[in-house]
Amino acid sequence: MSKLWSPRVKDLKPYVPGEQPRITNLTKLNTNENPYGPSPAVLAAMREETSDKLRLYPDPDATRLKEAIAAYYKVTPAEVFTGNGSDEVLAHAFQAFFCQDLPLLMPDLTYSFYPVYCGLYGIQYETVPLSDTKGIVATSYDRPCGGIVFANPNAPTGLPLALSEVEHIVRSHPDCVVLVDEAYVDFGGETSIPLTQKYPNVLVVHTFSKSRSLAGLRVGYAIGHPDLIAGLERVKNSFNSYPLSRVAIAGATASLQDEAYFQEKRAQLMASRERLAAQLQALGFDVTPSATNFLFVQHPQMAAGKLAAALRERAILVRHLSQPGAQHHLRISIGTHDECELLAAALKEILSSAAE
Amino acid sequence: MSKLWSPRVKDLKPYVPGEQPRITNLTKLNTNENPYGPSPAVLAAMREETSDKLRLYPDPDATRLKEAIAAYYKVTPAEVFTGNGSDEVLAHAFQAFFCQDLPLLMPDLTYSFYPVYCGLYGIQYETVPLSDTKGIVATSYDRPCGGIVFANPNAPTGLPLALSEVEHIVRSHPDCVVLVDEAYVDFGGETSIPLTQKYPNVLVVHTFSKSRSLAGLRVGYAIGHPDLIAGLERVKNSFNSYPLSRVAIAGATASLQDEAYFQEKRAQLMASRERLAAQLQALGFDVTPSATNFLFVQHPQMAAGKLAAALRERAILVRHLSQPGAQHHLRISIGTHDECELLAAALKEILSSAAE
Repeated sequence: MSKLWSPRVKDLKPYVPGEQPRITNLTKLNTNENPYGPSPAVLAAMREETSDKLRLYPDPDATRLKEAIAAYYKVTPAEVFTGNGSDEVLAHAFQAFFCQDLPLLMPDLTYSFYPVYCGLYGIQYETVPLSDTKGIVATSYDRPCGGIVFANPNAPTGLPLALSEVEHIVRSHPDCVVLVDEAYVDFGGETSIPLTQKYPNVLVVHTFSKSRSLAGLRVGYAIGHPDLIAGLERVKNSFNSYPLSRVAIAGATASLQDEAYFQEKRAQLMASRERLAAQLQALGFDVTPSATNFLFVQHPQMAAGKLAAALRERAILVRHLSQPGAQHHLRISIGTHDECELLAAALKEILSSAAE
Repeated sequence: MSKLWSPRVKDLKPYVPGEQPRITNLTKLNTNENPYGPSPAVLAAMREETSDKLRLYPDPDATRLKEAIAAYYKVTPAEVFTGNGSDEVLAHAFQAFFCQDLPLLMPDLTYSFYPVYCGLYGIQYETVPLSDTKGIVATSYDRPCGGIVFANPNAPTGLPLALSEVEHIVRSHPDCVVLVDEAYVDFGGETSIPLTQKYPNVLVVHTFSKSRSLAGLRVGYAIGHPDLIAGLERVKNSFNSYPLSRVAIAGATASLQDEAYFQEKRAQLMASRERLAAQLQALGFDVTPSATNFLFVQHPQMAAGKLAAALRERAILVRHLSQPGAQHHLRISIGTHDECELLAAALKEILSSAAE
């Protein structure tokens, strides 16, 4: 700790991302990446942008990308904000909307970056318990607050919240922003984007990192009322005029224009998820019904940490989170068909060795 | 303005970047971009990284890039921080170091983003006057403060400050951070990186946007004592785990490895600058001696705004800044030899029409 730091920096508890090993030949099921690469059209668009044009700044407003997102979701470009991954979009949203006198509300088990943002911006927050089956209970947010944030489907549980429940929360809080983080929505959730057309206080955040196979490119976006987008733009333009590179704008735009590839790969992934869930249940795992590209599981006979370590010995990485409410579970990203088979076989072997 | 915004957002005065026109066939000398494209080795490295690997998150620590920067400047990777353009690096530094009880000091004419960051993070600041010849006067910073920031060479004046003068400022303020923004240093300035080996309170910020022709890629970095880098990492890891894409890490790393291209292009640019400065002086312009890739000029017979408008009619963009101390000047980026000739010819014509 340095005496030269700003006082708040001394108290920060930074986010710890899942391991990004530099060694290869690992089966990497720990950070919810897509097992399939991006569309060939995306790679072609990025390579075309990789030219002498890079000497020039990108469009600070990423107009082309905003227009593509707006067309895709049938909203206007003024209802779209883009950023350097949804983590940056979330950071700006926390600063733009949640620095209020009343505390921010969030589930007691959700994306663990949210409390980190609160630390960064000095935002007070309170957690709201999940149900016994780990679901978000809309009515438990019925109290005065400075804002509400949750992931839908929620992470790391994988459970979706119905649109009518989200609407209850949004409608009950006209004086504060409700942020719905839909990082995983394309794998079976129900998007709240239609609510943005009825309510000026709901902001929906998406990422290109999961369903669009572009975690390595860093693009995220938000959709909401133009007044919310204007608030985000004020923060962004006070932070970094050009958050998206020319290559990122080109690649993300092309992704939205290859709908066939997108639909094919997400269908494959959801099919693998259902197959793997059934295999793990057959091995005795408790598997939370997932609307995401990961499973949240626990086994009554073997502790999560022990299972993760045994898998690691077999060169398979899964995520064992340290958050309260998640320590007894593993979060397993859905891989290719072959990766899922490898995982199921390894777990079968680990459990039978333990039973001997 | 929205009632849903955080209170501070209502008072933000965002930075306004130079125009990025979407029409082509303009001679664009308004945002200090490099007239030469990046090294072919950079484009090749980026294209190679444009693959299925994009489905995976990038290295959150950009280890490869930090190692390349450290090797280039003969420091250790623990003394290097990287970010999504130097604007992001600056933003994190303001939050990490300048949220103090005493005000931040900065020149009364410098990069106009600095006061914007102060607004974003609630940092008090005071400006320190430049000399009559628009130079930074090191001794005028001899007073208690919460930090000091300036560009060296300064922008938009283009004037460098000698290393001994920077050292005076750093040595006089052991209890606060002195941030030296060296965006333009490769065009004739003297870097303060050697001071980072003697003083734990100096942070030097660089960008790949100017001398390395990668404004469109968004990569910047800082060099300083490991304690300062640790403070920046805490903020970065509370904001966005993965600020640099795989493609950005690959391209920036390759740039540092093509020294011959870098030296050739910056020599060409400095030669063009000297030639253009002489041409403009011959046309009666007052030209501040520049150690950057731009000229800061004024003409005794014609107002800067009028000149900028006349150039624009001829499809040449230059920057007419609105900051106090700069309104009577134009800031003209150095283009290729041909672009400089075009500009000089246009100015000659404009001035002779006006004299008729």
